[in-house]
Amino acid sequence: MQQSFSVAEIAEALGAPAEGDLDLRIYGAAEPATAGPDHLALAMDPKYASGLAQGKARVAVLWQDADWRALGLKAAIFVARPRVAMSVITKRLDPGPAIAPGIHPTAIVGAGASIGEGAAIGPYTVIGESVEIGMGARIAGQVTIGADSRIGVNALIHSGARIGRNVRIGDRFICQPGAVIGGDGFSYVTPEKSGAEEVREKLGQQTEIRKQKWSRIHTLGGVEIGDDVEIGSNATIDAGTIRATVIGNGTKLDNLVHLGHNVVVGEDCLLCGQTGIAGSVKIGDRVILGGQCGVVDNIFIGDDVIAGGGTKILSNAPAGRVLLGYPAIKMETHVQAWKNIRRLGRLFEQVAELREAVTRLGQTGRKDVEDDGER
Amino acid sequence: MQQSFSVAEIAEALGAPAEGDLDLRIYGAAEPATAGPDHLALAMDPKYASGLAQGKARVAVLWQDADWRALGLKAAIFVARPRVAMSVITKRLDPGPAIAPGIHPTAIVGAGASIGEGAAIGPYTVIGESVEIGMGARIAGQVTIGADSRIGVNALIHSGARIGRNVRIGDRFICQPGAVIGGDGFSYVTPEKSGAEEVREKLGQQTEIRKQKWSRIHTLGGVEIGDDVEIGSNATIDAGTIRATVIGNGTKLDNLVHLGHNVVVGEDCLLCGQTGIAGSVKIGDRVILGGQCGVVDNIFIGDDVIAGGGTKILSNAPAGRVLLGYPAIKMETHVQAWKNIRRLGRLFEQVAELREAVTRLGQTGRKDVEDDGER
Amino acid sequence: MQQSFSVAEIAEALGAPAEGDLDLRIYGAAEPATAGPDHLALAMDPKYASGLAQGKARVAVLWQDADWRALGLKAAIFVARPRVAMSVITKRLDPGPAIAPGIHPTAIVGAGASIGEGAAIGPYTVIGESVEIGMGARIAGQVTIGADSRIGVNALIHSGARIGRNVRIGDRFICQPGAVIGGDGFSYVTPEKSGAEEVREKLGQQTEIRKQKWSRIHTLGGVEIGDDVEIGSNATIDAGTIRATVIGNGTKLDNLVHLGHNVVVGEDCLLCGQTGIAGSVKIGDRVILGGQCGVVDNIFIGDDVIAGGGTKILSNAPAGRVLLGYPAIKMETHVQAWKNIRRLGRLFEQVAELREAVTRLGQTGRKDVEDDGER
Repeated sequence: MQQSFSVAEIAEALGAPAEGDLDLRIYGAAEPATAGPDHLALAMDPKYASGLAQGKARVAVLWQDADWRALGLKAAIFVARPRVAMSVITKRLDPGPAIAPGIHPTAIVGAGASIGEGAAIGPYTVIGESVEIGMGARIAGQVTIGADSRIGVNALIHSGARIGRNVRIGDRFICQPGAVIGGDGFSYVTPEKSGAEEVREKLGQQTEIRKQKWSRIHTLGGVEIGDDVEIGSNATIDAGTIRATVIGNGTKLDNLVHLGHNVVVGEDCLLCGQTGIAGSVKIGDRVILGGQCGVVDNIFIGDDVIAGGGTKILSNAPAGRVLLGYPAIKMETHVQAWKNIRRLGRLFEQVAELREAVTRLGQTGRKDVEDDGER
Repeated sequence: MQQSFSVAEIAEALGAPAEGDLDLRIYGAAEPATAGPDHLALAMDPKYASGLAQGKARVAVLWQDADWRALGLKAAIFVARPRVAMSVITKRLDPGPAIAPGIHPTAIVGAGASIGEGAAIGPYTVIGESVEIGMGARIAGQVTIGADSRIGVNALIHSGARIGRNVRIGDRFICQPGAVIGGDGFSYVTPEKSGAEEVREKLGQQTEIRKQKWSRIHTLGGVEIGDDVEIGSNATIDAGTIRATVIGNGTKLDNLVHLGHNVVVGEDCLLCGQTGIAGSVKIGDRVILGGQCGVVDNIFIGDDVIAGGGTKILSNAPAGRVLLGYPAIKMETHVQAWKNIRRLGRLFEQVAELREAVTRLGQTGRKDVEDDGER
Repeated sequence: MQQSFSVAEIAEALGAPAEGDLDLRIYGAAEPATAGPDHLALAMDPKYASGLAQGKARVAVLWQDADWRALGLKAAIFVARPRVAMSVITKRLDPGPAIAPGIHPTAIVGAGASIGEGAAIGPYTVIGESVEIGMGARIAGQVTIGADSRIGVNALIHSGARIGRNVRIGDRFICQPGAVIGGDGFSYVTPEKSGAEEVREKLGQQTEIRKQKWSRIHTLGGVEIGDDVEIGSNATIDAGTIRATVIGNGTKLDNLVHLGHNVVVGEDCLLCGQTGIAGSVKIGDRVILGGQCGVVDNIFIGDDVIAGGGTKILSNAPAGRVLLGYPAIKMETHVQAWKNIRRLGRLFEQVAELREAVTRLGQTGRKDVEDDGER
């Protein structure tokens, strides 16, 4: 049976004022135009007023000072910062994943593993030896957790996630389906200096080509993840070579994000979809990298750096810097650079005209001089 | 036992003329140079004639008006549009995946789920409560389908695909291995305005740094997918926040493509490998985005837009526009822009020369004036 | 019980000189500052000397000619090329994955499959009909291997990897979790010429918009992978259409790398994280593509090409070329191009000044002429 909430309960969760019939019950949220009579319509901006007229909602979350009666509602809640309200409302209405309590009989739990009180483990999940799973953790089906790993309390791990050995994860961890945490690093070396090493040193030249095989540097370190971290679908986080790859408290990684070996990410960062961080990069706190950003290996990104989508960061970025482009430069500089590039056609014309004019002037000048000389 | 087809059968499927021994049977297709005597050689262009001589094919699909006897063949089929022929031939020769009929005894099917007639479900697949699977669907092993989801008739879902709750999919759906459909959106908010919000408003500046934590906006919407849609290996499609993320009929997504929450993609689009679409983007019909394209959140891409590989679309794109680059601009403009950039070295030289010339002219001019003054 | 090694054993594996108490035993490697008394500290550069003082290591691998006694050690090994030493040491210390010997009772092995001597197969792994697994292969849990595929000796395949039908893989293969090898190619055709075809021909224009549906070209080829190949987490490799997609001996693919159908990659290449190769590309030997590189379809990349992170290669690249940028150009040219772009603001100013100066000179000149005329 579907959960329901009274208007008063939602308003209390929001810490927001409400008016009208506070006992009305809602069974879910909806956009104003498609809301049914038992939905809470989300209309936190006046632009949604017309949508309310199209839909059938009797209760809505509205912008401050909205005239709810004129909108044909029976009750309303008033909020100041819509997305903050969305966070509270969606959390309250989320029924959570359908993972049955207890350990499914098909789940395989390795010797010496300890499963916290109230934890749920889904079908065909395989948990390695000596793993520790915190209280209240919900682990879906078909998940892998490698030996000696530890997951904190109230984790939520979706189906098909692959967590390797020696991965230490804090509390309230959320892992979307298919994410791989603790794969081996991508680290190879040739017996003699390779072309890539030479290009790095000389910035763009390789003088000698050697036919060499790659030897593998094995991955012995693990991964350490703080509290309140979320990892997106099919994201990949490599383990460190000797020490651990690290993700700080409160940091969120979107789908298909890639963290190379030895990377250290600080606290409260957002790494958006398909962003990739090469090996041994150090990222500060509260860094936001838009979708498809890239960071080359062995550099640092200071606290509070923000990079727009597609930014490729090829050198150290100081704290607070706002970046865009490939190569990454200050966002304002990048915007100006492309304005300039698009004006180049006109500039080439102007320079061509100038060259003609100056040639003419030079001839005139010479003529003048010649004339002078003739006088 | 391997299937075989007569030349006449293939020609009929192609609706194409054939000549020679139409009863010859072929057991597979091959490139001309490596074809064996029982292969159908695919040589739809005169450039493959020499390949036919190297290989052992007795039957080939040839370009129109080809002299098949001179090519040493016993039979030939003649086609006008080679890739269309490839579609027909490969479909006919594809034996399909090895999924045994019926529900494998290790598959787990939730309460209230309905499995259509003739559907096949592989080992260790887990199907949630109240799921509906259409007739003739073939679902491989180790797949997950979440509660309340619905898959249309004749679907083909490969191993390890993860389909979440509340995902509605039309008929003839194809899902490659490891794709995740219906993961949670990447949506967070801070109590006070964040640096990212400020940068968006001011295009590149953050004036105040606040140390804030991210609150999660939970994902309540699902995903709605039309008929004849295909999703590539390890692609990720997030569910919508309140309403569904939508993919229209006939649209195809390649490997590792990412669709954020609330995205709406129209009909008959192609989104090539590793392309990423940020949240709440609206994409029209017949849009083609090459590999590694990116689209920032909350913009729209009009019908029939085509973007070359790597294009990063940072603002609305009108219908029919052909784009390239980062930031995306008209393809022709981008090609010209880089021609101009590569001519900049010469331009700097010319301007330096002009400055010298003008200085000289100015001095001459001044000298003239001075001379005049002295006269 | 954890493995241990004597200093003499490690030194012998490295082929490197050692001094001090060669019978001391180490139980793992560590960075100098965090090493415990039973760790082998990795301090191959003088910059790590202070770290040794902070840590508790009694044995270290040091740079050549280091004064190990002054560093407070009881024994030391001396190496010339640190990363080569890392390869040897980490290989020696890697305990390998925890895959129990033998075939797990829940593993499903298809009819006619042959499993080599000493091979291990984990829980819930599904192996298709007529598959051949080489001797000593270790295949983790929840893996899929499709019908008629063949894996060489001593393979290591991690959990959740999906290997399709007709995939032939050489010896010593390593496959990280979640990789998909042998998915269907992304290949469609419209009945009439599509906008994308037209844009390719005309470089940027589509003159006519046709509303067409995509027909699928099915994938009949497989994948052929040489010896000593490694594939990263959640990488995707599509099968070829008619012939196989090919990866040569010794080539390594990082996480989330994408290879389209019919791609041929040579030997000893490195394709770093999130790089994508579109269909039918041919890549030579020893090619190194940094993270997030892209290669458009149907071109070739010569031997020994090196491309920096984010490079988008839109046309053939000759052997030995070092590339950067989007569009890819020579690395040096790209660095210079962006120096020039960043100087454009000054150039626009200079040209504006020149225009004013020339106008002034022209007026002066005209005035002179006029003056002359008046004289």
